[in-house]
Amino acid sequence: MPEDFASRAALWLDELGAITDEPGGLTRTFLSPAQARAKALVSVWLQEAGLEIYEDLAGNLIGRLASVNPDAKTVACGSHIDTVRNAGQYDGAVGIVTAVLAASALKGQPLPYHLEVVAFSDEEGVRFQSTYLGSKYYAGQLTGAELAARDADGVSVQEAMAAHRPAFPLPPPRELLAYVEAHIEQGPVLEKEALALGVVTAIAGQTRARIFIEGKAGHAGTTPMNLRRDALAGAAECVLTIEQYATAMPALVATVGDLRIPSPASNVIPGSVEFTLDVRDADEEVRRNFCARITSELQTQMSKRGLGIRIEILQEGAPVNCSAPLTSALESLVFQYQERCPRLVSGAGHDAVALAGIAEVAMLFIRCRDGLSHHPDEYATPEDIGLAAQVLAKFFSGFQKP
Amino acid sequence: MPEDFASRAALWLDELGAITDEPGGLTRTFLSPAQARAKALVSVWLQEAGLEIYEDLAGNLIGRLASVNPDAKTVACGSHIDTVRNAGQYDGAVGIVTAVLAASALKGQPLPYHLEVVAFSDEEGVRFQSTYLGSKYYAGQLTGAELAARDADGVSVQEAMAAHRPAFPLPPPRELLAYVEAHIEQGPVLEKEALALGVVTAIAGQTRARIFIEGKAGHAGTTPMNLRRDALAGAAECVLTIEQYATAMPALVATVGDLRIPSPASNVIPGSVEFTLDVRDADEEVRRNFCARITSELQTQMSKRGLGIRIEILQEGAPVNCSAPLTSALESLVFQYQERCPRLVSGAGHDAVALAGIAEVAMLFIRCRDGLSHHPDEYATPEDIGLAAQVLAKFFSGFQKP
Repeated sequence: MPEDFASRAALWLDELGAITDEPGGLTRTFLSPAQARAKALVSVWLQEAGLEIYEDLAGNLIGRLASVNPDAKTVACGSHIDTVRNAGQYDGAVGIVTAVLAASALKGQPLPYHLEVVAFSDEEGVRFQSTYLGSKYYAGQLTGAELAARDADGVSVQEAMAAHRPAFPLPPPRELLAYVEAHIEQGPVLEKEALALGVVTAIAGQTRARIFIEGKAGHAGTTPMNLRRDALAGAAECVLTIEQYATAMPALVATVGDLRIPSPASNVIPGSVEFTLDVRDADEEVRRNFCARITSELQTQMSKRGLGIRIEILQEGAPVNCSAPLTSALESLVFQYQERCPRLVSGAGHDAVALAGIAEVAMLFIRCRDGLSHHPDEYATPEDIGLAAQVLAKFFSGFQKP
Repeated sequence: MPEDFASRAALWLDELGAITDEPGGLTRTFLSPAQARAKALVSVWLQEAGLEIYEDLAGNLIGRLASVNPDAKTVACGSHIDTVRNAGQYDGAVGIVTAVLAASALKGQPLPYHLEVVAFSDEEGVRFQSTYLGSKYYAGQLTGAELAARDADGVSVQEAMAAHRPAFPLPPPRELLAYVEAHIEQGPVLEKEALALGVVTAIAGQTRARIFIEGKAGHAGTTPMNLRRDALAGAAECVLTIEQYATAMPALVATVGDLRIPSPASNVIPGSVEFTLDVRDADEEVRRNFCARITSELQTQMSKRGLGIRIEILQEGAPVNCSAPLTSALESLVFQYQERCPRLVSGAGHDAVALAGIAEVAMLFIRCRDGLSHHPDEYATPEDIGLAAQVLAKFFSGFQKP
């Protein structure tokens, strides 16, 4: 087992983390110029590790290590190469780096399955306000509605894909046995327990919605307070209600991450406002009940203000359960390095959600500092990341069709 | 006195209201292409009315009717040709149209003063988040700080003015005796009293500020509600506190018209938010006390949330009192058409505020529908506007140096 995983991981993450569409911060979105440069870099790692490289129409970069048995099925491992705006360099990237490192340890070893290391082109969905465009395409699960979605410039997913020229030929058709992904925890548990690694039992379900508040624009100097129908004041009440209701729940989280006034001017009462809502919980029923209660409460409040409200559900994602045998296999390997191995629920979505439709999935979580992610300060140590790569390498070595 | 003022006003306002930078709505900002087209149109009206036309470096369009006495001082009349975003076609425009109509009635009449009809290039301040750039320049009151302000593209006021080529030579130096402006009321009083016109005794003072809330960005799926420092939730609390405090005051109005998340993403907790605050009252002390109370309350609330708050005052404008003799002269003319003439306080700012530093000012208010302005539905009848033009024409005819 190579002992230099930690130092190689640190170097690779710094190199990958420097490739950005927006100087001064890390931002890499679906099929952007920076994403193409990032994939060029990862292609070199994959080829040096002895993998053949491919790229599909959705811009997923795939490194392939063929089985000794041409009819064998495929085990995939990886994560996403896109980021949120002003991101950290670990979210997504550690899953790619650890997968390449683990695959590099298999050189010369006859494999009973094909191995694919994948850098997915879209998980965060910044460009199209979507999720998992890359991994869903890879899994053959992309819908017509998703292909029709348009970015801020009016370009659809389908058009963006048609304009994209894959740098390498398409991979052969394949059937997935399993998908495994390493990722930073993005939460505080492993750090609190002073443990490098944990396994994931389930990924929380998620509701994503867009909410529109309609009031009436008016002059800021001449419209008396009691005659206003101020859409921003209404939206502010919604934001605080969502915060208050979510805070009262044991584990659920709800976030308004984007809020816009379509025609903002400091001397005009906002006539309309739109904002996003993101609700997550590991329990499907808890999440759905919360959304129903919030919908009813916001409608009542806006009606009292004489404001219109429209709630558009963009996505309802059920929780995903990880494969019990695969999780157990990962766990037994983690026990070679730690006395305990926490079993965690992921509050964040992952490419594993998109793959769960066609394969058994399992995930390894890596301790991160302050539970922080989606932020330039996010951090995981090279040692912890190297350890995750070792667990994956042993997992690949020992993997047999379940 | 021409009887066709109403029909000419209606035609001119429709023509001017169709000239926009943003198709689908009326938006005309400082020195924009649409503003140049609008001034070309107004130039024709001015020339047909027998005025000589000029344009200054700040893009103010000036029509001049010279006195029989070359040493005479100047009376100015007009309003602004810029608009808010998605504006109505009366705010500003009626002041220009009525001034041109009134001036046209003076043809051939020897004037004891020079008359200047002015279309000011900037009152709303949409492009530079400023106020009265045009009328302040005309009045020689533009400060270095205002010249250094930059628009969304990083262009400064000074640079924009340097790039602007006036279509007509500069006007000769002049000293102002008086400035008179007709404007829609932008409030409900005249409509409620079923009267076409009123006079203005004072223009409310105004505080404009920008407020910055600093929290911490974080992952929307993995940061527990009780560990968040959500800048948007903090800003929402500010918006509601401002609304609540202002609603408790008898006449004061306070507005948050613009609110932005610098890096918005639906799956990221907002780390920072900025918003504008606009506070107005006819009483200087009432307004200043309100701002002090709000500042203290918002600081307390944000501190409880672990959020930073910074309040940047952009402008403190004292109330402006209109000239008592000029107002009385306008009022006596209004009485020729109405049994009563309401004396109003203007909640909105006007170019008269910028001119008050160098001239006695007076304003005529015109009834508008639903008190609405800064909105595509704003409306005043051609008859009311024609009446205002007649009052101005009589005012010009009878004006003597006070």
